[in-house]
Amino acid sequence: MMKVGIVGGGQLARLLVLAGYNLGLQFQILDPAIDACAGQLAYLIKGNYEDISRLKQLAEWADVVTFDFENVPATAARILEEQVAVYPQAQTLYIAQDRFCEKTLFLELGIPTTLFATVDSLDELRRAVIKLDLPAVLKTRRLGYDGKGQRVLRILDDVESAWQELGGVPLILEELVPFEREVSVLAVRGIDGETKFYPLVENYHRDGILRLSRVPCRDQMLEFQGYNYTRCVLDHLNYIGLLAVEFFVKKGCLIANEIAPRVHNSGHWTIDGAETSQFENHLRAILGLPLGSTSLLGPCIMLNCIGAMPELARVLAVQDTHYHFYGKTRRFGRKVGHLTLRVNDSDKLRACLNVLLPLVGLTIDEFLEWSY
Amino acid sequence: MMKVGIVGGGQLARLLVLAGYNLGLQFQILDPAIDACAGQLAYLIKGNYEDISRLKQLAEWADVVTFDFENVPATAARILEEQVAVYPQAQTLYIAQDRFCEKTLFLELGIPTTLFATVDSLDELRRAVIKLDLPAVLKTRRLGYDGKGQRVLRILDDVESAWQELGGVPLILEELVPFEREVSVLAVRGIDGETKFYPLVENYHRDGILRLSRVPCRDQMLEFQGYNYTRCVLDHLNYIGLLAVEFFVKKGCLIANEIAPRVHNSGHWTIDGAETSQFENHLRAILGLPLGSTSLLGPCIMLNCIGAMPELARVLAVQDTHYHFYGKTRRFGRKVGHLTLRVNDSDKLRACLNVLLPLVGLTIDEFLEWSY
Repeated sequence: MMKVGIVGGGQLARLLVLAGYNLGLQFQILDPAIDACAGQLAYLIKGNYEDISRLKQLAEWADVVTFDFENVPATAARILEEQVAVYPQAQTLYIAQDRFCEKTLFLELGIPTTLFATVDSLDELRRAVIKLDLPAVLKTRRLGYDGKGQRVLRILDDVESAWQELGGVPLILEELVPFEREVSVLAVRGIDGETKFYPLVENYHRDGILRLSRVPCRDQMLEFQGYNYTRCVLDHLNYIGLLAVEFFVKKGCLIANEIAPRVHNSGHWTIDGAETSQFENHLRAILGLPLGSTSLLGPCIMLNCIGAMPELARVLAVQDTHYHFYGKTRRFGRKVGHLTLRVNDSDKLRACLNVLLPLVGLTIDEFLEWSY
Repeated sequence: MMKVGIVGGGQLARLLVLAGYNLGLQFQILDPAIDACAGQLAYLIKGNYEDISRLKQLAEWADVVTFDFENVPATAARILEEQVAVYPQAQTLYIAQDRFCEKTLFLELGIPTTLFATVDSLDELRRAVIKLDLPAVLKTRRLGYDGKGQRVLRILDDVESAWQELGGVPLILEELVPFEREVSVLAVRGIDGETKFYPLVENYHRDGILRLSRVPCRDQMLEFQGYNYTRCVLDHLNYIGLLAVEFFVKKGCLIANEIAPRVHNSGHWTIDGAETSQFENHLRAILGLPLGSTSLLGPCIMLNCIGAMPELARVLAVQDTHYHFYGKTRRFGRKVGHLTLRVNDSDKLRACLNVLLPLVGLTIDEFLEWSY
């Protein structure tokens, strides 16, 4: 039986484990938290990501090591790489961890992205504001997620307060794009370079947190652009595994926002809605196995459960809804699970959403405004 | 989080656990074998099924207890029932464990079944042979599975040797039905009596072991008969959970063969091929949750892997094939996993089967002979 080590024990690791058990894989998880939710399903090595002896313990046991999230120190990935196959590679993690490197990569590959400037002092921030104009977004270059570590600057008075809040670590100022939609491409690339794409996903964020994803997007031109750009990234990095690229859509064109070198929240619908889930395909890729079909079983809407799960019985009363709880305790703003609705008929869809959206803290009006 | 105890830790328990984790359920398993394959995924209480202290330990922890197989002593089920909700009920287990009780139930409910006679001595066997005529099948009343504990009698000379082999425990002689096909009905019934049926499954056995199941069967008359008979059984028993009834088909009519009061091997295709799997629906039923849709996602063929798994990479190279390994060691005649092929196009199906059938020890000729 093949052995997979996962650095990080959150829901992405948990969903990888659930997919992998069917393939007969074994798992060990490294996480500093003893209650990491993937540890309920697989052997947990409790340890920090910088703990060399724990990293070596994982590397010694595993046939291949992968990641639950991209903010594992790249040095940890390098230590692992000395002992065992590690996918995605440390170099890729390094790029994805730093918004400046990431955006530089987009530029190098000719992929449209937002204007940006690095900021290491208040003076640099002032110059960057003049160069990019307002509104703009000031972000930490590293360790941002779910809208954390960023601040929108709308007027000149915001400049100093934003600097007070975020300054002291490397920053980046980015143009604020008045986008119409947000979409993501999920692609998987095998050790032999074989690449498959899932249907383009349309995403709805609120307060920087993904709340809803929808497939199919039914815009073939956008999908074609997205596949091309993503293929450039994958081939350039000689990437192995599943990768997501998030884009803004402005006037029918894609503007690359960021790369996630891992399975991605906007791909959770694939568990119930694709021939092969993103989790199984990531495992297949990093183990050198043939990739599975990425085709769609039917239109899907994935709803994130933020803070707490809706009551199980109320969700299951909505036919064709699939419930995924991550075994996490409640906490404000925390992703604790998701629901996937797979339904063909649009009247039925509307009826289901009337029940489900309020259960996850969204309104039907908000949904309609977003989707039409 | 709701807590489910499972008596028996084989693949059925394992597949229940995998389905239940998504619903946020917790599991404990009681099994005498320390290496029971469901114990890789959930907490294992090592103990015999007659061990009262272990049964009580499970009952104390769990909100509901269910079974991995039907041959748990009915006394064990009764001990559990004193402390906790147990589904299916001990009374149902008792009936399903004894072929005489099972067939008497069919008769009582007006469900066609094979002629039969109980046999407790060689003299009784001789009388039963005269009554039923040869060929006939001599079976142990209890604890038979996968063709074990049975012997076909073709000529009078077989009578004494069969008695030598099986005698000493309660037996039953059954008419040998020259059937054309074998089918099964999988149904799930909730605590409120709500009942749902999966599409009728067609099954291929070799040497008494299920090797292949196929849906849909596309014979609406048979399906209708099967649903009616199964509904009679469910309502009569006030059954809660998933139940399978196996039938022979003779001249377009169903003849009931046996009841399995649990998730069933001929329903494994539902993991990849139905809106809600039999495992999730069994859990929903016993927990009093709304039942999920049983509709088909597309035509499926499920292949059992007997003795050993085929090589993972070779299976995954066949698009649209789903691999399910149970984490069991190889052993002659043992069910160690299954594959599910879900494919619409008949040319593509043929191409896939050309590769897959030999990997599970079947031939394309055998398949064609069976299916046409």
